[in-house]
Amino acid sequence: MNGAESLVRSLLDADVDVCFANPGTSEMHFVAALDKVGGMRCVLGLFEGVVTGAADGYARMAEKPAVTLLHTGPGLANGIANLHNARKAGVPIVNMVGEHASWHIAHDAPLTSDIAGLAAPVSHWLRTCESAANLASDGADAVAAAGGLPGKIATLIVPANTAWESSTGKAQSDPSPTLTDDQGSTPEEIDPANLQRIAEVLNSGESVAIVIGGAALRSDALKSVARIAKARGASLFCETFKSRMERGAGRVPVDAIPYRLQSATTLLEDFEHIVAIGTKPPIAFFAYPDTRSELYSEKAEAHQLASLFQNVPKALDDLEAILDTTDVIAELQPLELPVRCEDGPLTPGSLANVIARLLPEDAIVVDESVTAGREIFAATQGSHTHDWLEVCGGSIGGGLPLATGAAIAAPDRPVFCFEGDGSAMYTVQSLWTQARESLNITTIILANQSYDILKYELENVQASSGEIALSMMDLTRPSLDWVAMSESMGVAARKVATVAELEEALKHAASTQGPFLIEARL
Amino acid sequence: MNGAESLVRSLLDADVDVCFANPGTSEMHFVAALDKVGGMRCVLGLFEGVVTGAADGYARMAEKPAVTLLHTGPGLANGIANLHNARKAGVPIVNMVGEHASWHIAHDAPLTSDIAGLAAPVSHWLRTCESAANLASDGADAVAAAGGLPGKIATLIVPANTAWESSTGKAQSDPSPTLTDDQGSTPEEIDPANLQRIAEVLNSGESVAIVIGGAALRSDALKSVARIAKARGASLFCETFKSRMERGAGRVPVDAIPYRLQSATTLLEDFEHIVAIGTKPPIAFFAYPDTRSELYSEKAEAHQLASLFQNVPKALDDLEAILDTTDVIAELQPLELPVRCEDGPLTPGSLANVIARLLPEDAIVVDESVTAGREIFAATQGSHTHDWLEVCGGSIGGGLPLATGAAIAAPDRPVFCFEGDGSAMYTVQSLWTQARESLNITTIILANQSYDILKYELENVQASSGEIALSMMDLTRPSLDWVAMSESMGVAARKVATVAELEEALKHAASTQGPFLIEARL
Repeated sequence: MNGAESLVRSLLDADVDVCFANPGTSEMHFVAALDKVGGMRCVLGLFEGVVTGAADGYARMAEKPAVTLLHTGPGLANGIANLHNARKAGVPIVNMVGEHASWHIAHDAPLTSDIAGLAAPVSHWLRTCESAANLASDGADAVAAAGGLPGKIATLIVPANTAWESSTGKAQSDPSPTLTDDQGSTPEEIDPANLQRIAEVLNSGESVAIVIGGAALRSDALKSVARIAKARGASLFCETFKSRMERGAGRVPVDAIPYRLQSATTLLEDFEHIVAIGTKPPIAFFAYPDTRSELYSEKAEAHQLASLFQNVPKALDDLEAILDTTDVIAELQPLELPVRCEDGPLTPGSLANVIARLLPEDAIVVDESVTAGREIFAATQGSHTHDWLEVCGGSIGGGLPLATGAAIAAPDRPVFCFEGDGSAMYTVQSLWTQARESLNITTIILANQSYDILKYELENVQASSGEIALSMMDLTRPSLDWVAMSESMGVAARKVATVAELEEALKHAASTQGPFLIEARL
Repeated sequence: MNGAESLVRSLLDADVDVCFANPGTSEMHFVAALDKVGGMRCVLGLFEGVVTGAADGYARMAEKPAVTLLHTGPGLANGIANLHNARKAGVPIVNMVGEHASWHIAHDAPLTSDIAGLAAPVSHWLRTCESAANLASDGADAVAAAGGLPGKIATLIVPANTAWESSTGKAQSDPSPTLTDDQGSTPEEIDPANLQRIAEVLNSGESVAIVIGGAALRSDALKSVARIAKARGASLFCETFKSRMERGAGRVPVDAIPYRLQSATTLLEDFEHIVAIGTKPPIAFFAYPDTRSELYSEKAEAHQLASLFQNVPKALDDLEAILDTTDVIAELQPLELPVRCEDGPLTPGSLANVIARLLPEDAIVVDESVTAGREIFAATQGSHTHDWLEVCGGSIGGGLPLATGAAIAAPDRPVFCFEGDGSAMYTVQSLWTQARESLNITTIILANQSYDILKYELENVQASSGEIALSMMDLTRPSLDWVAMSESMGVAARKVATVAELEEALKHAASTQGPFLIEARL
């Protein structure tokens, strides 16, 4: 057995059985080992941003990590933006990055680079394999470090010779992390004094906004939070960008903190306390001249019951025990489909109306629609039960890969991906993987032909908007033809401009096998 | 004046007048300043790999850096692979990376990341601006650190508040680099003892292979090298991947060291000395089991007259003075267009034949054709005078952006880009920028529908090739439709499968304004 085969066996033993890959020469022995061992599904992406973003989407739905296979430093670098997004979302990923054979590194070949240096800023755990004999245990340690959901980014650098040299297949495990960040060193235990203080705050009669994220957005935790809020008259909001939220009919309805600074601060300004659960007390996405970073009042007191990486269900159980909420019944959202809007040109509002009505039971929604789709979230509150996934690290280009990975993890559920045209272009190669794997994904491109978000931000940062500035936000010269783009990668597509056309296209997509793309002209 | 405006003025004063950009909120004041100041051409890329790769191509032809505008850590990360390629090619680039306002960083907003950590592995010079008052001088220092051609990667991190806060526009310059790598600390001076030793080697009558790269591939340096080789009977080769080589009719003809390991070692095995000029003694692209990294014999002695970053023309002058080559006349390549091959299906050979005949005078060629285009280089030895640019860091996806930047730098020269389908997919968004800027680029996709190079490498690393391994190199499920892909981004395109069709398509491309893409089915 060589090192590569021992690593594949070790990953399979740890229940990691999906590999998102764009391999190169240094990873050929790992790829060859996949044929020898069997049992690992290997999904090819034509760009590494697809690979890492799909691993993110997969882990959010599978609640366990996939392994990525990346070709040396530049291959890793291409995947960093979506690793950043996954890291901020608390999603586990195991990266396997190929490196030159150890003796080749000093020669500074074209592909030689500081892989560990590139990996460190996005990795909670990072190790370079030192010999073929260690590769099995290094793989097991990486999976252990990545954990479940919420989880962490574990990166294993594998010099090519450790993959091709021989191994016994077993070695002593050393699970100690090589690198930790601030969140990695956060104690998993909930501080009892803090718990007590938050209970006091909730009992005080002062106004409280509970802000939830991470694991607090799952169905059972939501019920618990809703009981607490109802019992003590607290207001309940979820964070702006959500890793995975279970919502729709039969779930707890929660409004999100708006992205727009003024709306967010207005919403929160009167609360005397902010209690964050599974997230941090809310802060602005960007800083602006003469504004503070916190979205809540200077006079408010901010609390955190549990961080993204702490045990949120246990923290909620403990808090409910103190507050004695056993008799409280959480109010659940009934199925409330909106009345069909009039036919006519698609607008953000009419598009949201169509989606809210036609979203099927048990759908997975990936939302990276940025400005043009901002009405969809509120509109789908009473739609059929669904999961809602967003990009949590602010790096555009997460959406199409997230949908790709989610569909691999949950092949029996329909996946809908709402994408801005600007962000879709970042990882557009995802469509090819969706076609190759015949994934059940309907992508809706909200084609406003603009980096519209930047027009808002330009004003927000109090910068003037001249001709050059506006041209940097303009995607009309030339305009992108999303139907041709999609079909060029094997995904059937259709352009729609009215309510009726969108309805018809969604019905067509639902009736066909494999991916479909709808270009919605707004 | 605010910091951003002072930075724009400082860059323009330093003769940096092209900005490749994908800005976000943190960079809005810089973009606004471009309107206020005037004189900076700002070119939008829809993905940062386009932005950094275009800056590389621009600097190779303009012989001075462009500035890139990148949005925080993830924006930089998306551009790292092509910064890696530029770094290996010795190409100057000034990166301006936006960061949150200084007081916002500690709040760990979604886009907060360790930007300096990400930048360090690809930057020779790296600094975070500390106040608006410093921004003008920080910009000047970055340009100075980047230098000309050959040059370096200088990265300036700009917190948003230093862009919007006010500045006097001038500040004390501090050109000391914040970070240097091994090559950065290489003395620029040529060691006289080393020079003398190399002269002795050339005079010894022992067999010598001169291997040239970097600045030794420019027309005058080539003549100097050719005189030295001719005077002392040395063999002359250029490195496998060339940053910018001036060649064709009227230039010095030089064969390249082949990519394939066996071919390269066979070529070099009998030489007693290797003299590298503007590059290192040649090493293998990858290491393989039981092979050494050096491409030359264990018994050979390796020398380096000048590194990539040393003064190659001066080193050659000094060596010529010692060897007294004043009476030697370098043999120049006559115009030798091949006889037209028979019409028929396109093969690597017939494609190279067409290109060699039809390449126009003064063209710029960007070659990232990987396997299918490997015959083009030799075939175009006697073609009309042209510049030849390749990706030097082994990270695929450099070609389309290089062509984009080269066309911006040299608008009056026709640019030809030979691309493999696998590598073209990495930065396919380049086509949109080519259309938007109406650049005179003809892209020829050598569509073999495969990561063909990996099939060779799989064998080379002695790995077995099972079903999964081969499927990871297969781009036929679905096959990419390059005409639809290109047209979706506004670049007219045509598919060709025969010699006559390719000839016709090239003539059509030459007769039209703006970019054109040819999908060559092999």
